[in-house]
Amino acid sequence: MPLITLLTDFGTIDEYAGVMKGVILGVSPLATVIDITHNLRPHDVRHAAYMLEAVYRFFPRKTVHLAVVDPGVGSGRKILAMETDDYVFLAPDNGLLTLVMDQGGINCMVSVENPNYFLDSVSRTFHGRDVFAPVAAHIANGVDPSSLGPVIDPGNVVRLPLPQPEITFIEGRQTLIGAVTAADRFGNLTTNIDAATLARFMGTAQAEDMTVEINGRRIKGPSQSYASVDSGCPLMIVGSRNYLEIAVNQGQARHYFNIDLDGGQNMLVTISVAGS
Amino acid sequence: MPLITLLTDFGTIDEYAGVMKGVILGVSPLATVIDITHNLRPHDVRHAAYMLEAVYRFFPRKTVHLAVVDPGVGSGRKILAMETDDYVFLAPDNGLLTLVMDQGGINCMVSVENPNYFLDSVSRTFHGRDVFAPVAAHIANGVDPSSLGPVIDPGNVVRLPLPQPEITFIEGRQTLIGAVTAADRFGNLTTNIDAATLARFMGTAQAEDMTVEINGRRIKGPSQSYASVDSGCPLMIVGSRNYLEIAVNQGQARHYFNIDLDGGQNMLVTISVAGS
Amino acid sequence: MPLITLLTDFGTIDEYAGVMKGVILGVSPLATVIDITHNLRPHDVRHAAYMLEAVYRFFPRKTVHLAVVDPGVGSGRKILAMETDDYVFLAPDNGLLTLVMDQGGINCMVSVENPNYFLDSVSRTFHGRDVFAPVAAHIANGVDPSSLGPVIDPGNVVRLPLPQPEITFIEGRQTLIGAVTAADRFGNLTTNIDAATLARFMGTAQAEDMTVEINGRRIKGPSQSYASVDSGCPLMIVGSRNYLEIAVNQGQARHYFNIDLDGGQNMLVTISVAGS
Repeated sequence: MPLITLLTDFGTIDEYAGVMKGVILGVSPLATVIDITHNLRPHDVRHAAYMLEAVYRFFPRKTVHLAVVDPGVGSGRKILAMETDDYVFLAPDNGLLTLVMDQGGINCMVSVENPNYFLDSVSRTFHGRDVFAPVAAHIANGVDPSSLGPVIDPGNVVRLPLPQPEITFIEGRQTLIGAVTAADRFGNLTTNIDAATLARFMGTAQAEDMTVEINGRRIKGPSQSYASVDSGCPLMIVGSRNYLEIAVNQGQARHYFNIDLDGGQNMLVTISVAGS
Repeated sequence: MPLITLLTDFGTIDEYAGVMKGVILGVSPLATVIDITHNLRPHDVRHAAYMLEAVYRFFPRKTVHLAVVDPGVGSGRKILAMETDDYVFLAPDNGLLTLVMDQGGINCMVSVENPNYFLDSVSRTFHGRDVFAPVAAHIANGVDPSSLGPVIDPGNVVRLPLPQPEITFIEGRQTLIGAVTAADRFGNLTTNIDAATLARFMGTAQAEDMTVEINGRRIKGPSQSYASVDSGCPLMIVGSRNYLEIAVNQGQARHYFNIDLDGGQNMLVTISVAGS
Repeated sequence: MPLITLLTDFGTIDEYAGVMKGVILGVSPLATVIDITHNLRPHDVRHAAYMLEAVYRFFPRKTVHLAVVDPGVGSGRKILAMETDDYVFLAPDNGLLTLVMDQGGINCMVSVENPNYFLDSVSRTFHGRDVFAPVAAHIANGVDPSSLGPVIDPGNVVRLPLPQPEITFIEGRQTLIGAVTAADRFGNLTTNIDAATLARFMGTAQAEDMTVEINGRRIKGPSQSYASVDSGCPLMIVGSRNYLEIAVNQGQARHYFNIDLDGGQNMLVTISVAGS
């Protein structure tokens, strides 16, 4: 059964996501199409990159992951099809695949250029419908990515400069500094501190021994569940994306810590985790 | 054909609902997954209970209804699988199944505890993906609920204290007092006065003979359609959930009657229906 | 494989769209149901008409397009089933089909009245679930529209008075006057000036020779991509719906031009395109 996921900033107030499915089903009538989300902030390629990393491995092997956040539509930007051991990814060449590429296992990367796999008429503003959708459906049908265009070197594609957690000394104490990368519907804040980095940093330290600071406010070390603190109280926890999250039990950490994520450039917030 | 519905407060700006479908299709590749909604107010178990009651019987027999509003995720709260004559329900043990249980026909209730049916790695914050989704898919595949964990007594599960309509005397007149339980996208207000209770109360009275009051404003007795009053005018009508609704033709009753439903505890509003 | 699309103003915070799918799958278990959108502004039949026109032809032949924006639910308004060469459309008789009908190719128009194809119990407020959904599923199963009710003359159905672009003389120059019909998630403004009308009007004129004015602000002639102007700058472009669009590269034209589309009657904005 062909399976295709969609991850876009097209929203769900317009017809954009729905019409892509019509095109897909015209090419691959038995395909199942799953929405990851269409409500990414418009043009937020970075958030798309994090979200794609968070979901792709939960899908069956051979799933085609189609991700379109594409402010460069209609310009000269390439469209990439990337085949890994388990999946095929289709995305604009704007860095959206950065984190997936970091996982390795890339077997083939091509620049999608063969119009035989596009709709007959390609609009200037909606390649999601006219290029990405039919190409994904053809891949799901078994078309080999190498038929789609010239093979390119993964070293030559656009990569996002994503902030990495750093270990430094502050006031004589070893400190891990990360950044908030996104807020979810519940106001939970995801950071770029992954579970392995946190575990390495903590070593044998206990949660009680840690102090954490975000936007000038302090919270305690990692909790085991939201409900482990009182309602309305803040906590940190390794979240479902396998990154450290800042949350408020039954509340909104985004508001509690007064984090503005709309600015893009301003969404960086340092978190320091001090050993005992 | 396995059929699974999803009713959650996970929203559609994040990947939560989509990734659950990936997990489901990994376990049950032919399953169809239908979204009831993911946009319940976060942690609003009561609204989830009403909505589940409103939809479940419109699905084919054997549908697995998966409902997750789960502020206690990661704590000791149980997960329930309930098999009735026609459906299987899967939900946290927090009262979400209260109204469905009131319909009777319960054949089996178990506490879901068997990790063989979970994802290999279970996160602390997202049992929707790691427990509910794979378990629902296994049930849809034919796994018997009794394999999922110990059978428990339905009398021992958490139940919500939901407000019931009451009949009383006010100023010498028999009066039915209900409560607004929710507002929908159109601003229509659903009450807890079901069609049968209303019919019993009205007896042979005519709509013209009734006076209805909500938040200090009066409206007329039941109408037969929104369009039966002028545009912008209020009305009451037995709605599609089979409860009495307060609406404004082509307008927003929520605004018209100044109802604040965000507070949860404050969403109760009395409606009196006086006989002639 | 039966294929049904849904285009409504039911929103996705309530159960309305989801429960329609339950009814559809009860009648047509193998049907695939695709959401076009459920987030049309409540009661905005005109926007629904434009959106249906934008999508229907991207779906495989035999698709059943179900569109419900239905302020007259429960009143005497008819429900129409319209069979064209390639599709079947199901919608209230309130003008929603106006633009699709303009495409011609109508083989059969009926007034849907046969309760054998409805749910056993039809509510007063939700024909989407009780009438439209089961009827669409029966059509997708192969029931002939003529079984659904009496054939009616397409000339007798309700049509929307949609604004048409006009050519006139202003200050001695030929000017094309259109109207903004909608804004999308990106704030892009769609007009009623279709690509063919624009091409005819421009003739051999170059984009550089044109002046365009919207709400008192001027922009340049048609661009070839959003990215062809600097970030934050306005442009006009033939959009994916095949109408002229006003956009701001990586910005919101709706805000840039201060267009209020919520008023319905006030959403008309003139655009003049002057030849050299």
